[in-house]
Parts: sequence; structure tokens; C-alpha cells
Amino acid sequence: MKLSMVANHARWPRENDIIFNLSERAQSAEKKFGKDEVINATIGALMDDDGKLITMKTVYDELKSLPNAEISAYASIAGQDDYKEAVKKVCFQGNDPEGYMRVVASPGGSGAIKLAMWNYTNPGDVILTSDWYWSPYGTIGEEAGRSVANYRLFNEQGKFNIESFKEKFKDIIDKQGNIFTIINSPGHNPTGYSVSDSEWDEILDFAKDVAKDESKKIVLFIDVAYIDFVKNDVESRKFFKKFGNLPANILTIVGFSMSKGFTAYGMRMGAAIGISSSEDIIEEFYFSLMHSCRANWSNCNRGAMAILSSLVSDKEKYDEYKNEKDKYKDMLVKRAEAFVEGAKDANLEILPYRDGFFVSIPCENPRQVCEELTKENIYLVPLKMGLRFAVCAVSEEKCSKAPKIIKEVLDRI
Amino acid sequence: MKLSMVANHARWPRENDIIFNLSERAQSAEKKFGKDEVINATIGALMDDDGKLITMKTVYDELKSLPNAEISAYASIAGQDDYKEAVKKVCFQGNDPEGYMRVVASPGGSGAIKLAMWNYTNPGDVILTSDWYWSPYGTIGEEAGRSVANYRLFNEQGKFNIESFKEKFKDIIDKQGNIFTIINSPGHNPTGYSVSDSEWDEILDFAKDVAKDESKKIVLFIDVAYIDFVKNDVESRKFFKKFGNLPANILTIVGFSMSKGFTAYGMRMGAAIGISSSEDIIEEFYFSLMHSCRANWSNCNRGAMAILSSLVSDKEKYDEYKNEKDKYKDMLVKRAEAFVEGAKDANLEILPYRDGFFVSIPCENPRQVCEELTKENIYLVPLKMGLRFAVCAVSEEKCSKAPKIIKEVLDRI
Repeated sequence: MKLSMVANHARWPRENDIIFNLSERAQSAEKKFGKDEVINATIGALMDDDGKLITMKTVYDELKSLPNAEISAYASIAGQDDYKEAVKKVCFQGNDPEGYMRVVASPGGSGAIKLAMWNYTNPGDVILTSDWYWSPYGTIGEEAGRSVANYRLFNEQGKFNIESFKEKFKDIIDKQGNIFTIINSPGHNPTGYSVSDSEWDEILDFAKDVAKDESKKIVLFIDVAYIDFVKNDVESRKFFKKFGNLPANILTIVGFSMSKGFTAYGMRMGAAIGISSSEDIIEEFYFSLMHSCRANWSNCNRGAMAILSSLVSDKEKYDEYKNEKDKYKDMLVKRAEAFVEGAKDANLEILPYRDGFFVSIPCENPRQVCEELTKENIYLVPLKMGLRFAVCAVSEEKCSKAPKIIKEVLDRI
Repeated sequence: MKLSMVANHARWPRENDIIFNLSERAQSAEKKFGKDEVINATIGALMDDDGKLITMKTVYDELKSLPNAEISAYASIAGQDDYKEAVKKVCFQGNDPEGYMRVVASPGGSGAIKLAMWNYTNPGDVILTSDWYWSPYGTIGEEAGRSVANYRLFNEQGKFNIESFKEKFKDIIDKQGNIFTIINSPGHNPTGYSVSDSEWDEILDFAKDVAKDESKKIVLFIDVAYIDFVKNDVESRKFFKKFGNLPANILTIVGFSMSKGFTAYGMRMGAAIGISSSEDIIEEFYFSLMHSCRANWSNCNRGAMAILSSLVSDKEKYDEYKNEKDKYKDMLVKRAEAFVEGAKDANLEILPYRDGFFVSIPCENPRQVCEELTKENIYLVPLKMGLRFAVCAVSEEKCSKAPKIIKEVLDRI
């Protein structure tokens, strides 16, 4: 038998990231045919119309004006206190749910998901998320012996499929006694769907009903990575209020990330915000997650924390940042509208888009379709049930014309 | 029964970091009595004689001159290619072991330990390290259901206790079939011991002997977090050569960190370097660790990687950095010498110090002694078997006079 040194649980297929590969191929094509001829819709970051990464001036000016010691020193294990306060301010913007809250810093939104999933599930547990989902949820789970089950995200009307959600939720909690469910909203990756306020009510009414059995434990993980690029900043945050005053056996964890809202992807800064009506449950949350911080990465990027704390504590700077961000948000909204409009004109079926960086196109054999699209110099990301088009990374003009080409390729396959 | 929401494996005592608490108390004392009157030897970072954090100008000038996009963009999951090359260059400085090597980026040295331990041990496994050890090894282990066993670090002559090492090593590998052992050298935290070249030969001869049984799997994790502050930069790296051409069932993983050598603690940047005589084993290493990256923190601090790549690729800049670092190294060496000399004069027993940030003092009831020392305005870190004095953080003058006071307190308890 061939020698293997790793533990049994650590053997994975030896493959590189498919998004990264496609993105490299798109860049080669740009060199060969010119940037105007290529549509690279693989990248999950805001790019300008020339395909250059957008970096917010207010954010990077702040970083570069920090005293060196503010970047160099170790941060506290669970994050600097002023950062933890700034996270709540930026995330809730006044819509703080009633109850007890604690914040634990994490490397990006990914780190927050890791912290939450590790501490609130057991090996062998099944995590619940929708059938269209960001694949790292699965990777984070499988690494530690958890798996993912799915409900159908959409019903026939293209709305949140509460029936499917309830059915799967009941299945799992009846078997396990506990459930950990991830809802990525607003601006869901990969579909761009946002759960509406009334849909949140339905979800929470159902959860409260299940929670009447006090032996049941429910953890709602709300991944809000894309919240800063939702059309209406104020309206988009009202749903946070709904997580106040829930029964103690429902714990809400909000996954916050600086990656998108502050164009800080590479700085790896985020947080998990625990919300509970029980002080004891929220203390438990804090100390369990802090232990995981110490045991995984020790502490987080101090300079990135200082940027947020500093921006938030200075009204003038914060306003300047918001103006800058809104400018890019408007750009994103226009691109998305152009794509949705283009899809309508070309009769291309897309999933219900509301907000965020991505639009999804349902199709058979996504990998084959992606390959075929590269012949037309269009680069998308293949998912299990379709294709992901990154409107965040493609100019309005290209967003407008892409649907027709995609439709043609789909028709000829 | 009281409601608890976390999984069984995630319940830990609700306590804050003791080092952090002591450091806070030292700072209060400084405010009350003046900086000259207080010796704060708790901090594991280089401080100047006024107690201010030292940040290397060459490092932070580089960070602040990076294009924003070099900080903002997501890095590759396993790290940027130029960073991976730079890590090998900086770490080995020409003493590359023969064989196959791959590098996986991690958040600091802690992240590298996490990556290695997770992938090369099973739940329930026992990890081997010395009886004086950096406590997060235990935290990283216990988080995932691994525990730590110890050999005695020192023999009667104050040298590496190879007999105790062999005995414990055999115990574990006979039971488990595999072993994961961490050796933190040179400049061991907390004792300042450095394994000598001939001691490495003894360790490796023994490991090779055990590895003749091909069913046995041996992983040597070498934590070199303090290597850049060893007296002789060139001599200190010769031992790396010894990890070449080992049998395929011995895998060496070097834990690299930018924290100390580049005063980049808060940037969280390090790497795990795998070394094997088998290409297949090293590919397995790469893909297993990369999966863990994706599943824990996704990717690492891109700006920190760019600093290293940039410094290393420009001879002039790199020389300037080395000159700056060597200045601080000389300062550290003088402080350590002053402490060792002071201990000798005061008849204070200390452990054999060679290099690095810390000196250790064996004693009974370390917590009680630490409390008693605070009455003399000396702040140290209590360990299981003694006290840790951070020469990295204390002026030469204070290093010189501290041993006498410590001795007096020990005598009166």
C-alpha cells in the first residue's frame, strides 16, 4: 500500500481552486485578445470598468496613516475592545436587537463561520443551508466531519421557499436535537437573493414554535457579507431588530466581514456577533469562540481592526467613507440592472436577483457550459446547478451584452 | 439543568488570558509609580528601554509604500507564490535541506502549528513536547481532542534530555503507531534553550532507527519562531540541512513566523514548510493543509506577504532590514547577558539560557510567587513549573537588577 502520512480525516482530492484557475485563464485571454474582448465574471471583488481592483481611498489612507505600533502589536485574542464596538455600530447602524450581545473577531467572514460551526455542532452533524450556496460552507463543514443538507431556496413564485425550509429543518432537529442553519442574506452568494422582512417573520415564527420544546437547540447563522452593497442601507438593516427577545434556546450569530464593505478582502478581518436573550448563553458563546481563536489563529490583524475603529469614531471620516462606498454601490446596482435587463431581453432564465455581487443562471452541465463560454471569451464560475456571473467585476456595458451570448451558448449545447 | 447551547467539546473554563491581565496590572503600576519603578517582563515582544513597542522601519516603510491593491486583493488559499519562495529564502538562508519542499501560508506561527497538528494527528492522540513548553500547544491540541505529553527538557547537566525524549517517544509511537512531536528551537519559549547540532543528530538518529519499522509514522514539527534573534544567524541555520534525505515515514514541518523577526506580530503571517524525501508525501502535505486553510480562515494577510516578498527580492532593502534587525538583536543579547549575569551574582537558579526572548526561573507555587513579586513592582508570567521573564521587553539595566529582587522574594516565601 502506498505510504500516506496524514490522518484519515485529512485526505482530500488534490485539486486547485477552480475559480482561481478560470480567473487565470481569463487573464491570459485578455492578454491575447485585449481587455475589451473578454468578459471575466469570475472574480468575487469589486473591479472598475477596466478590470482593476477597486480599493477605497478612505480605507487605505487610514491604514497608511496608522502609527506602526497600531499595526505591529498583538491584538487581544477575541479582538480589540474598540473594534468590537465598531463592528456593532457598522453592522447594525442603530438597529441593534434587544438582548445580550458579544463580538469575537475573526479572519474575514470565513473565520466567523468556522468559529460558529465548530462550537455549535458535533462531528457527524448535518448543517442546513439552501440548495444554492457558497461552497466553502461545505468545505468548513467537511473539514471537521460535518455535512451540509439543503432546502430549496426558491418556490414556484421565486420567493423564499419556507415550506422546504421548514421540512428540512424539522427533519434535522428531530434527529439531532439541535440545528445549525446558515442564511446568507441580504445579497446572497451566488444568487443575489435577499430574504424579505416578512419572510424573516415566517422563519422566526417557525423557529420559535420549534423552540417551545425546550430540549431543542437552534442556532441561526446570518451571513451578512454583502450587506453594505444592498440598494438601501437603512431598510436592509431593519431585520436585525427581529433577533431580539427570542427564546434562550435560539441563538443568533451574525457573520460580519470587512472584505466587501471596506474593500479589505486581503486583510482578513471579520467577526461573529452573538445575540441572545440569556446573558449566560452569550458569555458561553464568547468564551467558547475565544478558545477557538487561540487554538486556530491566536489573534487577528490588528491594523485592520484599527482602520474600522478609527473610521467609525470620527464622524467626518465615516461620512467620507460612506460617500465613497455609495458611489461604488451605485455602480454595482447599475451593472446588476443592466444584466437583469439584458437577460430579460435575451430570454435568458436567471434566478431572482435582489442585491449583491452575483447573479446566477440555472442550467444543466455547468462545467461544460463554462468551457463552451470560454470560446466566446466569457468566463463564469460553474456551480452545481448553474453558473455564477460576478456583476461586481464586470462593466455595465459588458453586463448588458453578456446575457445574449450566454443564452446563445446554452441554446446550442 | 442549566441551558447550554454549545457542543460538549466546546465547553471551557470562562477565564481571560493571564498574561494579558498581568500586563494590564503592570501598566497600571507604571502609571501610579512611574515607569522607572516598574519591571514589566510579561510581554512577548521587543520593547525599547522606555517600554515602547519596537517596530522595524524597513518593514513598515515597505507596508506603507505598497500599492493598495497589493493589500486589498484576496491572496491564494495556500499563499502567494512569491511569498512561498521568500519564506524558504528567509528561513533557510541557503541551508535548504535536500528533498521535496512545499510551503503553506498561515496566520502567524500559531496557524502553522494548527495546520500541522490537525492534519497529522487523530482525535484522542497524544502530542509530544518538552515539560517546559508554550501553553498554546496544549490549547491547540485540546480544542480538537488531542492532548500533550511531556519529556523532561533538561538532564542533570542542563543539556537536552535525550533519554527522557526517547522514552516518551517510544511509549507514544508504540501505542499510536504515529507520533507528532514539537521541538521549539532555537531560542525556546519559555526557557531560551537551543538544541545543539550534536543533540539534533542524536534526535534524528533515534527517529531514523524507529522509522525502520515502516508502519510507523513520525512527524517532527520544528517551531523556529525565535530563530531571527539567535546570536549567530549563520550557525543557527545549519541544522536545517539535517532534515534532508530522511526516510519517507519521517516528515519534517518547519513552523515559520514573521511575528518576531519582522516585528509583525499583529499582522498574523507565517507558514508551514513541509520537507520530505518523497514527492508524493509532500504533495499530500500541501493539499491537506490547503484544505484546512480554506476551512479555517480561507486565505492570509496579503499585504504582510507582499512585505516579505518585496524585502527579499531587493538586495539593498534586504540588507537594510538585516542591519536594522541585527541592531535589535544585539540589544536583546546584552539584556539576556545582563539577566544571566545578575542571576549568577544573586545566586538565583535559572534554566540554561542560550537565545531568544525569554529566561525561565524554576520554582514552587509560581502563581503565588508572581503575586508576591507584584508587591516589588516586578511583573512576570507564571508557568506550571516556574516563572517566565521576558528579556525582550525589559531594559538592560532592569534585566541586571531584577534577579536579586526575584531571589529575595523567593527566599522569603
